[in-house]
Amino acid sequence: MDSTLTQNAERDAETVQREGARRAVYEASPASDPRSPVMLFSADEPLAMDSGARLGPFQIAYQTAGTLNAQRSNAVLICHALTGDQHFAHRHPVTGKPGWWETLVGPGKPVDTNRYFVVCSNVIGSCMGSTGPASLNPETGRPYGLDFPLVTIRDMVRAQAMLLDRLGIPDLFLCIGGSMGGMQVLQWASLFPERVFSAMPIATGARHSAQNIAFHEVGRQAIMADPAWADGRYLEEGTRPAKGLGVARMGAHITYLSEPALHRKFGRRLQNRAAPTFSFNADFQIESYLRHQGLSFVERFDANAYLYLTRAMDYFDLAEDHGGVLGHAFRGSKTRFCVMSFTSDWLFPTADSRAIVHALNAVAAPVAFVEVESDKGHDAFLLDEPAMFSAAQGFIDAAARARGL
Amino acid sequence: MDSTLTQNAERDAETVQREGARRAVYEASPASDPRSPVMLFSADEPLAMDSGARLGPFQIAYQTAGTLNAQRSNAVLICHALTGDQHFAHRHPVTGKPGWWETLVGPGKPVDTNRYFVVCSNVIGSCMGSTGPASLNPETGRPYGLDFPLVTIRDMVRAQAMLLDRLGIPDLFLCIGGSMGGMQVLQWASLFPERVFSAMPIATGARHSAQNIAFHEVGRQAIMADPAWADGRYLEEGTRPAKGLGVARMGAHITYLSEPALHRKFGRRLQNRAAPTFSFNADFQIESYLRHQGLSFVERFDANAYLYLTRAMDYFDLAEDHGGVLGHAFRGSKTRFCVMSFTSDWLFPTADSRAIVHALNAVAAPVAFVEVESDKGHDAFLLDEPAMFSAAQGFIDAAARARGL
Repeated sequence: MDSTLTQNAERDAETVQREGARRAVYEASPASDPRSPVMLFSADEPLAMDSGARLGPFQIAYQTAGTLNAQRSNAVLICHALTGDQHFAHRHPVTGKPGWWETLVGPGKPVDTNRYFVVCSNVIGSCMGSTGPASLNPETGRPYGLDFPLVTIRDMVRAQAMLLDRLGIPDLFLCIGGSMGGMQVLQWASLFPERVFSAMPIATGARHSAQNIAFHEVGRQAIMADPAWADGRYLEEGTRPAKGLGVARMGAHITYLSEPALHRKFGRRLQNRAAPTFSFNADFQIESYLRHQGLSFVERFDANAYLYLTRAMDYFDLAEDHGGVLGHAFRGSKTRFCVMSFTSDWLFPTADSRAIVHALNAVAAPVAFVEVESDKGHDAFLLDEPAMFSAAQGFIDAAARARGL
Repeated sequence: MDSTLTQNAERDAETVQREGARRAVYEASPASDPRSPVMLFSADEPLAMDSGARLGPFQIAYQTAGTLNAQRSNAVLICHALTGDQHFAHRHPVTGKPGWWETLVGPGKPVDTNRYFVVCSNVIGSCMGSTGPASLNPETGRPYGLDFPLVTIRDMVRAQAMLLDRLGIPDLFLCIGGSMGGMQVLQWASLFPERVFSAMPIATGARHSAQNIAFHEVGRQAIMADPAWADGRYLEEGTRPAKGLGVARMGAHITYLSEPALHRKFGRRLQNRAAPTFSFNADFQIESYLRHQGLSFVERFDANAYLYLTRAMDYFDLAEDHGGVLGHAFRGSKTRFCVMSFTSDWLFPTADSRAIVHALNAVAAPVAFVEVESDKGHDAFLLDEPAMFSAAQGFIDAAARARGL
């Protein structure tokens, strides 16, 4: 029958189109970025996860800077934030932007790559080369999607420890990171205290607050409300939940800034106009800025990875893991701590840092506390903050002397 | 329904189905709620809007309580907030809940319906009986959708003034409202100073901040990202952007509360479980609560109305309308003001109220300022706050004595 043939031909064309789209998405996917060294772990060396899952095979993408000394005593681990990656001091392969922490890390910088061997790995569950929900599930040959096991901060740290073992790094001179990176620093100091000489958790907390969980949940719902999300199977469908992920990013981005910073940068200024348009166009500069943030984010980040990593932060509660007493997470610790917060950070306010300091005090751990006066909000740790640099410089130099570096 | 189907028997089944869906949406639409008195304005009495549009015919749905005295001197206008309505002291026809301000308004309450004649109207652009984007455009016979002209706070106030004219109310003993309602109160006192004896703007600001515009923009983008929004033509399509509107509401709801209130109410408590599920289910109580807020909101609110009213708040800048000097908005005012804020309100922080008070001081207007100690955040003005009630009682009683009531 002609009609059957026509139907078949249409179906074939459709399939080809969909396959083509699928391939295009795979190829464009940051998950397959080849420009980072990748450490492979076979199915015989699985990652034992908090959920009970054993993930294997898996891989960790990472970057390094500087040289490991003969004593292997000068290693620094940088832990990245929610939407960060391993490109801390190298041009980003997708965005072309400078490394995200070049302000703090580099030759002659507080984390001096002339003196230290610096490692940063993409966290497990992310999408910049380490195994995550966009990776192929070897059991099915399809991307994991929501079949990927839930990830915790502790899982990220365990995977990093496995990477360091492979790299022949027995312990860390310094473990440093902000926001979700700071959570990993705290988890490192708690889980492997003998491997952490000094630790700098910045703009972080020992647990995620109800309000922060709430903001994350709104972002997740925005992604899952997007029909293009397709129950997490969008890579196979050849679609992408760009609108949902964009909305999630826009909302989250507000929480990374501060009202004073937004007022200073944008106020109520109109976008290239003398008068409002009386429409739903981006009349205000802040609207245009946020839309841009949403659009550029979806080009470099995987929606499912966003779901997984926000969930990991929500689950983080270091005290809960230690009978409800945060100090017990650090009992007997010899790690030197420098805890840092920013006055205008309302996502991880100074009170969260103070709680960490009090817990460390309670177990007589050596700790310095720095609250940096800044109106730049949570993202201050990524920005040009001289007070942060000088405090970090002082702490790290002193630790290096104590370590004999 | 059956007779309608019979009448439509000649049409093809698909059209009938689509029509049926459309009708069902119309019937369920709060816009057609018949349980409020409605004041009709003909095409000869249009509303002159800030955008330049002249809206007519249009209608205003309202509710009253108490009795207007012979001197017509005891009228109180209550201005509702973004997602509020005229049901301030009456059971809500859609939700079945008590009136939204029964805590403050009623027999023996600070706004005493035994003494005052209280009016509250649904703002123009909303969806509870007053003309808005869900109403039929008489020129096309279809719902306005985005063809509805942009609404400003001043437009809302002009429409209220036209309603009061019809009701034979020359001036207001008291104009009172919170949040967007407070913006209307300020606009009333500025636009019609001779018609406002006393004014109580609560938890509000004389302009919308960059951060607040940002949060609104995320909500609008969430709605417009929903394919069911259909460029605003969802009523005709028989769809509803419930997911997008739900996400918008979830995000906004966080801003109505406070971190301490969220911590007290929910903390990190899990939802009917001893341990996390390691999934994207609503593990935490706060997640389940937010999802419920989103779901219940979409049952009572129109998505386009949400776009319009958030935009009206964004555009509000009373100083900008008066050469950049807020005090000029109130020059020569004889209105007695009581400005009220709440310590934990971060949407309209006390600084916003202080700016209003300073502007009133600068033009020697009589003003009292009350900052209520509360951890309930922005929504405190809707809640059981004894300090708010007693301050309101004192201010209103004194105003009544001055008015000879």
